Amino acid sequence: MKAGLRILGIDDGPFSKNVDNETILVGVLMKFNSYVEGITIKKIRVDGTDANEIILSMFNGRFNREINFIMTNGITFGGFNIMDIALINEKTNIPVISIVRKKPDLESIYSALKKHFSDYEYRIGLINKSYPEKITVNNNDLYVNFKGINLTDVKNIIKKTVKMGNIPEPVRMAHLIATAIIRGESYGKV
Amino acid sequence: MKAGLRILGIDDGPFSKNVDNETILVGVLMKFNSYVEGITIKKIRVDGTDANEIILSMFNGRFNREINFIMTNGITFGGFNIMDIALINEKTNIPVISIVRKKPDLESIYSALKKHFSDYEYRIGLINKSYPEKITVNNNDLYVNFKGINLTDVKNIIKKTVKMGNIPEPVRMAHLIATAIIRGESYGKV
Repeated sequence: MKAGLRILGIDDGPFSKNVDNETILVGVLMKFNSYVEGITIKKIRVDGTDANEIILSMFNGRFNREINFIMTNGITFGGFNIMDIALINEKTNIPVISIVRKKPDLESIYSALKKHFSDYEYRIGLINKSYPEKITVNNNDLYVNFKGINLTDVKNIIKKTVKMGNIPEPVRMAHLIATAIIRGESYGKV
Repeated sequence: MKAGLRILGIDDGPFSKNVDNETILVGVLMKFNSYVEGITIKKIRVDGTDANEIILSMFNGRFNREINFIMTNGITFGGFNIMDIALINEKTNIPVISIVRKKPDLESIYSALKKHFSDYEYRIGLINKSYPEKITVNNNDLYVNFKGINLTDVKNIIKKTVKMGNIPEPVRMAHLIATAIIRGESYGKV
């Protein structure tokens, strides 16, 4: 992997349930050597269906230079605003890797979606487009979804972009920035 | 310089003259190896006199761990809201380094302060507390003000914390984040 390759790391900000209608989605454009080239901040609806539209809108203007990989913190943003990994990969032609620390509890997610969303079949369909695979980085488990790339390359890229702990820098920075914007301060791990 | 030493890099966000009463001041807590540990975001009055108070408020809570150096982008934030380098150094007991790319045009600054501020003597006094010295990093000139540290150490720290160009990473990151928050997107150099 060359140090000059670029990753767009994406994470959402926190929000208050039943209070906030929207939160933010932050994209951090970072080279493999951890050099941050740019930051983009978008609004996203809590429990909405605009995650794909918002992510794709990040590929405009000055951000529309060569991005080699997209890395996200999970596939749900602003609650249950769900990203379609296959669609993002298809529209951008860029490999997409989603990572989470904990194994997603799919039964609880299905149950929450059925309880609270009239369009739950659509949302469950998005979640079922990929199944998280467990990998181990620095002796910690991570769960990844991916499209447009194979598992060996996913593991390599994650290992190359982790500085401390097990969260790759582009996603960790997007998380730190998004949290600081909403809470006024952020500190430490994803 | 050890990789584990910490710098608090500070820069302000942009604002619209005669429109915005306030903008933001962003602090990025970064290790010498460029690892970002935390981000803090405060509001600051445009052309106000609260720069010192806001900067000192960053040294609370979880940010109040060992910070070895404070680095700022200039000494004026939100227009002519001027930092008192000596005061910040005295209150925190931490060396303070302010850097700017261009040689400050002090005559123009004095003239603008006299024209627009009734308390211009106070503001000019803050500016005159230190005089910018020229240094050269990666064949580019930089102008620095500093307190609680000598010029040799200032040069060393700047050289160690510059990754590309001539702006140290803690200040460059604070600038990128502050600009992205106000404009929605930021890209490239300070």
